[in-house]
Amino acid sequence: MASEHKEFTAVCTKLKLEMLELLQTKHELPQETLDWLNEVVEYNCSGGKLNRGMSVVHCTQAMATGKVLTPELQEKASILGWCIEWLQAFFLVADDIMDDSTTRRGRPCWFRKANVQMIAINDAFLLEAFVFQILKKHFRSEPFYLDLVETFHDVIFHTEIGQLLDLTSQSLDKEVDLDRFTIERYRQIVINKTAYYTFYLSAACAMFLNGVADKASHDIAKTICAQIGEYFQIQDDFLDCYGDEQVIGKVGTDIQDNKCSWLVVQALDRATPEQRKTLKDNYGRNDSDAIAAVKKLYNELDLAAAYHRYEEETYKALSEEIAQVTVMPSEVFSLLVGRIFKRNK
Amino acid sequence: MASEHKEFTAVCTKLKLEMLELLQTKHELPQETLDWLNEVVEYNCSGGKLNRGMSVVHCTQAMATGKVLTPELQEKASILGWCIEWLQAFFLVADDIMDDSTTRRGRPCWFRKANVQMIAINDAFLLEAFVFQILKKHFRSEPFYLDLVETFHDVIFHTEIGQLLDLTSQSLDKEVDLDRFTIERYRQIVINKTAYYTFYLSAACAMFLNGVADKASHDIAKTICAQIGEYFQIQDDFLDCYGDEQVIGKVGTDIQDNKCSWLVVQALDRATPEQRKTLKDNYGRNDSDAIAAVKKLYNELDLAAAYHRYEEETYKALSEEIAQVTVMPSEVFSLLVGRIFKRNK
Repeated sequence: MASEHKEFTAVCTKLKLEMLELLQTKHELPQETLDWLNEVVEYNCSGGKLNRGMSVVHCTQAMATGKVLTPELQEKASILGWCIEWLQAFFLVADDIMDDSTTRRGRPCWFRKANVQMIAINDAFLLEAFVFQILKKHFRSEPFYLDLVETFHDVIFHTEIGQLLDLTSQSLDKEVDLDRFTIERYRQIVINKTAYYTFYLSAACAMFLNGVADKASHDIAKTICAQIGEYFQIQDDFLDCYGDEQVIGKVGTDIQDNKCSWLVVQALDRATPEQRKTLKDNYGRNDSDAIAAVKKLYNELDLAAAYHRYEEETYKALSEEIAQVTVMPSEVFSLLVGRIFKRNK
Repeated sequence: MASEHKEFTAVCTKLKLEMLELLQTKHELPQETLDWLNEVVEYNCSGGKLNRGMSVVHCTQAMATGKVLTPELQEKASILGWCIEWLQAFFLVADDIMDDSTTRRGRPCWFRKANVQMIAINDAFLLEAFVFQILKKHFRSEPFYLDLVETFHDVIFHTEIGQLLDLTSQSLDKEVDLDRFTIERYRQIVINKTAYYTFYLSAACAMFLNGVADKASHDIAKTICAQIGEYFQIQDDFLDCYGDEQVIGKVGTDIQDNKCSWLVVQALDRATPEQRKTLKDNYGRNDSDAIAAVKKLYNELDLAAAYHRYEEETYKALSEEIAQVTVMPSEVFSLLVGRIFKRNK
């Protein structure tokens, strides 16, 4: 696993050097600008868990004949994996500015660096532009190239719509407006903002590499991956409050940050008018008594049990749905679900 | 001209409604989010001079047989024109945040609105994403579709590289570092940041619509449009200081804003060590004595005469270059140069 990780990371360095060479030779950028862009990639595309990127390799493997990849296919899957990681870097650099965040992956956010600040917005744009330059360089002669480019466009579009739904579900003046935290709104946010780029994009890349480009298969992949993505985000929200800090490696802050979390959405759905008032008075306040009051209410409503029921039901429903897929190899979906079932970090 | 303008603007409304319908039916966005996106387009894609967008229509006309467009070609040219205008809106919304600007087109910048703020970053992303959705909806069946999409990607990439070169040519701590204001750096900034999206993209769209998609023709178009774009930006920089405020409709601020303007670059190229010191002491300072000292130096160095020489030489060189173009109809280039030659606003 360590060597797999190392091999995968080497591909990022290779892609970065290719981009810098293009910018040096064709665009004739001065050395200081090349150094800047080297740092943009180094700082923002490393330090993550690489789950999304490595998923492309594993999904491609799961679909391949004999489950073994030729070196060429391994290389292509790794390149597409890094396209997803760089795309994520584009989103995260910008999200951190929009959320006014302080740290990311244990380091100061890119825009917090004194010599960067709002230049980070343009750096985010460039990370996105790099992705399309990489796709062009490495996949232009593939029969699926156009579908691949449009898939990236569509996934980006979904993610940005999800971000808009998320940002406009909270008032800018920090006043808590719980009316917008509905089950339907929650689903729309997480499917658009997270599921498409976290699950469907990996699956879609693996499908293209294995010659599966028909609309019917991709529609099925979207439907299933949307549900996997929703399940994944619900786990994230649950672990933010109920997870073991030692295992997760961070302290949850969704309650004080006024996040549209699955827990608050479920609480609102179950709350009496009195309990709703407790939420209104305490949610989104950075104060230990307020946080404790919200957690107490979650316990009264037994949201942990509701979560475990949801997890069992979702796993069962997804497994049945995956078993019925006949138009394409369905191992890719079992793999994605299997990786997150009952995760505790 | 007024009716042409009105007809062109009607296409923007049509595209906006198509986007909103897609988001309502396929993406099932709530009404408040549709209203938000309606406002994003209305606020940021209107109020400009529409030169870039209308250029696509005029360039397509200039290249067409008999100089007359069929209604279908007129429609397609208008749609591509609006893709450039929306793309520009994406750049401007983001640039205004990066430059910490106050107004744009006589209104507060989008991010200055109390209910928008940093959500503007995601709105900028969405404007870019809309462009690719429009291209897909209206041009997917065209033989030049893939080239068109890649042309937009390449132009975006150039613009972002230009923006990076520009942002990193000034120190963030507002200290004036004139060493970075060189003729070479200036050229690189303006060709990348302005020329590609302002001239080449309009020409390229017209070329695709007239069946000109070969690399040789597009390489020539890039070379000529880079020079036209450089000339256009030099005019802008000259008019910022020497233009008639009544005619231009705004007061120039490049000197106090520490801009890498053609005038300061030329001044530095001609300055004695003493004059260089005058620039170092006064450039980039918002103080009327300092501004007057810079303007006095520009006059001493007779930069107005240098500008008029540059204008005549450039026009002559461009005309000769355009006359030698044989691989494609060259009227598109004469049209673009003719429109800006000796402009005073």
